[in-house]
Amino acid sequence: MTSPAAPVAAAPDPSIRRNRTADATVTLLADGVPLAGQEVVVAQRNHAFLFGCTGFEFIPLANGELSAEATAGQTEAPGGSPAAAAEHLAGLWSGLFNFATLPFYWGGFEPVRGRPDTERLRRTARWFVDQGCVVKGHPLAWHTVTADWLMELPNADIARAQVARIQRETTGFAGLIDMWDVINEVVIMPIFDKYDNGITRLCREMGRIPMVRMVFQAAREANPHATLLLNDFDMSAAYECLIEGVLEAGIEIDALGLQSHMHQGYWGEEETLGVIDRFSRYGLPIHFTETTIVSGDLMPKEIVDLNDFQVPEWPTTPEGEARQADEVVRHYKTLLSHPSVQAMTYWGLTDGGWLGAPGGFVRVDGTPKPSYDALHSLIKGEWWLAPTTMVTDAEGRVRFDGFLGQYEVTAAGRTATFGLGETGEVTATVDLRRDR
Amino acid sequence: MTSPAAPVAAAPDPSIRRNRTADATVTLLADGVPLAGQEVVVAQRNHAFLFGCTGFEFIPLANGELSAEATAGQTEAPGGSPAAAAEHLAGLWSGLFNFATLPFYWGGFEPVRGRPDTERLRRTARWFVDQGCVVKGHPLAWHTVTADWLMELPNADIARAQVARIQRETTGFAGLIDMWDVINEVVIMPIFDKYDNGITRLCREMGRIPMVRMVFQAAREANPHATLLLNDFDMSAAYECLIEGVLEAGIEIDALGLQSHMHQGYWGEEETLGVIDRFSRYGLPIHFTETTIVSGDLMPKEIVDLNDFQVPEWPTTPEGEARQADEVVRHYKTLLSHPSVQAMTYWGLTDGGWLGAPGGFVRVDGTPKPSYDALHSLIKGEWWLAPTTMVTDAEGRVRFDGFLGQYEVTAAGRTATFGLGETGEVTATVDLRRDR
Repeated sequence: MTSPAAPVAAAPDPSIRRNRTADATVTLLADGVPLAGQEVVVAQRNHAFLFGCTGFEFIPLANGELSAEATAGQTEAPGGSPAAAAEHLAGLWSGLFNFATLPFYWGGFEPVRGRPDTERLRRTARWFVDQGCVVKGHPLAWHTVTADWLMELPNADIARAQVARIQRETTGFAGLIDMWDVINEVVIMPIFDKYDNGITRLCREMGRIPMVRMVFQAAREANPHATLLLNDFDMSAAYECLIEGVLEAGIEIDALGLQSHMHQGYWGEEETLGVIDRFSRYGLPIHFTETTIVSGDLMPKEIVDLNDFQVPEWPTTPEGEARQADEVVRHYKTLLSHPSVQAMTYWGLTDGGWLGAPGGFVRVDGTPKPSYDALHSLIKGEWWLAPTTMVTDAEGRVRFDGFLGQYEVTAAGRTATFGLGETGEVTATVDLRRDR
Repeated sequence: MTSPAAPVAAAPDPSIRRNRTADATVTLLADGVPLAGQEVVVAQRNHAFLFGCTGFEFIPLANGELSAEATAGQTEAPGGSPAAAAEHLAGLWSGLFNFATLPFYWGGFEPVRGRPDTERLRRTARWFVDQGCVVKGHPLAWHTVTADWLMELPNADIARAQVARIQRETTGFAGLIDMWDVINEVVIMPIFDKYDNGITRLCREMGRIPMVRMVFQAAREANPHATLLLNDFDMSAAYECLIEGVLEAGIEIDALGLQSHMHQGYWGEEETLGVIDRFSRYGLPIHFTETTIVSGDLMPKEIVDLNDFQVPEWPTTPEGEARQADEVVRHYKTLLSHPSVQAMTYWGLTDGGWLGAPGGFVRVDGTPKPSYDALHSLIKGEWWLAPTTMVTDAEGRVRFDGFLGQYEVTAAGRTATFGLGETGEVTATVDLRRDR
């Protein structure tokens, strides 16, 4: 961002600037009187863009389940104790992200019918919300990792249990979690053949669109304020066809979730923009919901189901880390260059998660990789207004370019916050109050 | 087929027998009186199953455009002249098939706006109908080989031209052609990127389902008696999603067309039945619309768009012909074993058609391959009742197992035809009239 009053280092790409920043003129008042010719400090406090990551690993920390004592033989955790290691990671997490995805896989959330893991998830959600994060629940309906006990039920009862489950979560977490991946991977849901499960049985009988209608209706009625996503890994015409059928059937979708695990290699700008182009045709916001870019060897291209790739060890490498940092920067820049993309969730801050892949921005020993620093220099650098001293003009105005989001202005012992919600030229008037 | 009265050679597979044959008891009358204890001859005249093939190459023959003189240097055509060669091929064609697909590719049918090739196609359709064939037009809407002149029009005019074209063909050919591939390859229609064309432009703007609705509505209104197909090469979940969206939107489809070009290798029974299983879930008849099984080298698996495979020569080989014969038999048996399949169109009787592939049942020199003979021994052998002498019982009845279709019975100088339209035990009464 640059400002005549306060020039700042690097300028973002023109398309990012156009789609993500406001050219703000803010008139500052103190008790209704313009603050003319005064030094003020303007600082960004949050991004409107949802820079997200999974927050699964913070459930124990948020629930006070970790020992503050160093574990015997514990060498990897910086800080020496599980609690300290988790706090360290939490610091790294919040250095980048403002948006957390929490796990609601039915099989893990309610392995025994009637005993859901509600309280631990609620405390974790609150822990993120207290840090100013948006929290999303993932997913409310999916055939994989679903509850085994569904298989004891006839399909009509599976449907009832699925609806009741959605009503329980969307109602019970309202206010903390108002964004949900309502249903996941519907394209393959009725033909999933890895193992028998209740959701595939139900979807095969109902059909995809009635299934989507049922789960969205349940979520919408239970929490009318929630942002509800359809999410899929299938970036082919199949997902387009599904979306078109769902929209044609009158089902209201708030955002389209595109998974984008890249264990087999970074897509590159052209393919990524091609995908966004195809899915932005529906006029809906796009969320990149599950992104992985590895810092080690790539998974061979011929693997179709990523779960089929099982290696005893999948290390991060110096060359891989350099490549990952470059690709992460390119990928985030590509996403922010397109106005339809409103969120990007990285699938795991640390290495060793799904498939044991070196997909994190942080190594197993807790040290940040080059990708972490590179992304930080975007999200909290090039795309961020650090506290900047400006001088108001005779009408009490300051002008600056800023990424959409929340800002704070401080002057003469007074502070106020304001938001930049729209791109282009924006004017705002902010009344500063005396600090309390 | 076997019958206590008249045993016939080979018995079909149990599932084919169950899904394709009737256990018929036919009472024969002459002027209302049972023909008791008489020798009668029963013969099949046609199959209810649509054994189809493209009939493109017979347009010149049906239109009397071929020379009856041998062409200088003409060595390939048996018979010595183009007309004789075509007659020879026509004989081979009608030895197997009862169902013809004729070309209505817009770019070829109406290369200059307002000058459609209606008369030649009408004469060709009549030529097939006069032989007792069902004729299908292919296709009414498709982005490939569409009319170039559409690109000069704005999208609203392209839509009007498409609808008018459909009304013109479905009305103008009604009675001769009452079956249409209404729209082809919708899954990729709006994202087809090989070259610019009016139909992709339109579909991209309208969306797939409104496009399908528009073309089906036009065809349905213009010819309410027609059988209207949705046709695609995409056998993945994408086509399922498209179909589900189309049906959910209330668009009435009469049959689902599944292309099945196998230039890269025969699918095998398991995959074929898997495909049929997935697409039979919608309760609609299935037509295999475009099948090719080559008798030469297979196209490499890594080719995604078959059109990308260009070889100077693609010969038929003895080993390939043996393999093709085996696979053709297996494939037809697989299709007839499933009750949802009502039609099967082979994509070209002779070699050297699309891609120059050795995909025909007949070599370029006009001689039939082993596949021809093998298929003939099914369609007109194992699955066919040749003229068979039976003796009626005291009530004038004969009993036999027969494939669904049209039959003729002759007794004492009298002849009658009757149909077997349903599987299982069927009784019929046939009044024989004196031959005229």
